[in-house]
Amino acid sequence: MGKVRVANFTVSIDGFSSGLNQRMDEPFGDNTEGLHAWYESAMVERDSGRGGPEADQLQRFHEQAGATIMGRNMFGPHRGPWADESWTGWWGDNPPYHHDTFILTHHERPSVTMEGGTTFHFTSAPIDVVLDRAKESAGDQDVIIGGGASTVRQYLLAGLIDELDLGVSPILIREGERLLTDDVAAALREFQVVKSYPIGNATFYNLSR
Amino acid sequence: MGKVRVANFTVSIDGFSSGLNQRMDEPFGDNTEGLHAWYESAMVERDSGRGGPEADQLQRFHEQAGATIMGRNMFGPHRGPWADESWTGWWGDNPPYHHDTFILTHHERPSVTMEGGTTFHFTSAPIDVVLDRAKESAGDQDVIIGGGASTVRQYLLAGLIDELDLGVSPILIREGERLLTDDVAAALREFQVVKSYPIGNATFYNLSR
Ligand SMILES: NC(=O)c1ccc[n+]([C@@H]2O[C@H](COP(=O)([O-])OP(=O)(O)OC[C@H]3O[C@@H](n4cnc5c(N)ncnc54)[C@H](OP(=O)(O)O)[C@@H]3O)[C@@H](O)[C@H]2O)c1
Ligand SMILES: NC(=O)c1ccc[n+]([C@@H]2O[C@H](COP(=O)([O-])OP(=O)(O)OC[C@H]3O[C@@H](n4cnc5c(N)ncnc54)[C@H](OP(=O)(O)O)[C@@H]3O)[C@@H](O)[C@H]2O)c1
Repeated sequence: MGKVRVANFTVSIDGFSSGLNQRMDEPFGDNTEGLHAWYESAMVERDSGRGGPEADQLQRFHEQAGATIMGRNMFGPHRGPWADESWTGWWGDNPPYHHDTFILTHHERPSVTMEGGTTFHFTSAPIDVVLDRAKESAGDQDVIIGGGASTVRQYLLAGLIDELDLGVSPILIREGERLLTDDVAAALREFQVVKSYPIGNATFYNLSR
Repeated sequence: MGKVRVANFTVSIDGFSSGLNQRMDEPFGDNTEGLHAWYESAMVERDSGRGGPEADQLQRFHEQAGATIMGRNMFGPHRGPWADESWTGWWGDNPPYHHDTFILTHHERPSVTMEGGTTFHFTSAPIDVVLDRAKESAGDQDVIIGGGASTVRQYLLAGLIDELDLGVSPILIREGERLLTDDVAAALREFQVVKSYPIGNATFYNLSR
């Protein structure tokens, strides 16, 4: 059986994973420039062929994932009922998931199959039911809880996550969605810090039960 | 004129600088083992004579400080009126400050001069008044806002801090005092991340106006 993992999730020094005013030209909102700068460094380092934590991180992210769950705000900037159903995410015609991808939302719409094997399913089912569907689809691969903070917090509070790769990037977001709120931090009771390692300008922490 | 600085302040991955149940044998409270492990590495590295960020960090901490302000909970585990006045801090007869050190407290007591030049002053004056006294005493050296979180938060919210050296250590404290609460993070509006650097197993961030 695969694991249920949060992978490549990145927060600022002050603990936010997105800023205020998410919009079409700022998917992460205000003050988030550089939040994922580490990803470019990781790709450069991987492509150098030298191996190292960067290559491991990216390989693990891309190869061991069999299904993804995300919140509707990670999928797009829309709120309330869909005006139309043309939006299929930020990622173009061939999204980087290549597997069943479940969008938590109060506003269901029909599933959409994209190029490259990604199918977006829109569901208002309880989070544990969505996880069961994702596990079934993933088989012996991992289910990735992709984000945003609201979605990851719900799964952490429900005790449904096995492992987190959490990056801290050297920026201040100042206001936005916080991952490790007091209730979530307290719910990490069973997690240990397995290792920490730099990737680009970020520091990553691997937290596991 | 010196700066007003927070130096060597360390938080956990989840953002806490102390845990619950501070007591005589756990000055930082529950789940804080390893919070300052970086300090040992820094001393070893400095004593190696190779220089580097560790040596700079310690030198700056010890040599540019002309006065310190701390909260009563950093000074000791006592709460409420003093039962007696025998407690003179965790640091033995010769505390590592060697200058005027102001303890914010609602329970004043006479100043105590220790070996090595540290004098503890107990004051219930407003924080800006205490800062003025500390600046006068520090002359052209820096005033260090030593901690804990409650004290640093008050000075940050009042806009009275010029610079912070903030370390993140690879531990989870889970419950305790948080430095960058939502109001404090929002108040960092004028701060930029000047640099980040590893010291031992911690990552440090230098934040300046
Ligand atoms: N820093 C990172 O690594 C990272 C990773 C991923 C995403 N992000 C960013 O984070 C932001 C989004 O995060 P977020 O915390 O605001 O939100 P989110 O978790 O992406 O989405 C929250 C929304 O999803 C729907 N939803 C969530 N749980 C639900 C449930 N149990 N049942 C039904 N609907 C549910 C609701 O939308 P409706 O009520 O409208 O349906 C809710 O408002 C974006 O800016 C994104 O770019 C950052
Ligand atoms: N992680 C780090 O780098 C670091 C650094 C320093 C300290 N610490 C730890 O942090 C913990 C203490 O932090 P903390 O946030 O609990 O408290 P703190 O800031 O050290 O002290 C708070 C106490 O100081 C007094 N006080 C604070 N502001 C005052 C004001 N404006 N006027 C009058 N009195 C005032 C009050 O005590 P009374 O009402 O009792 O007088 C208050 O309860 C300790 O465990 C310490 O070891 C950690």
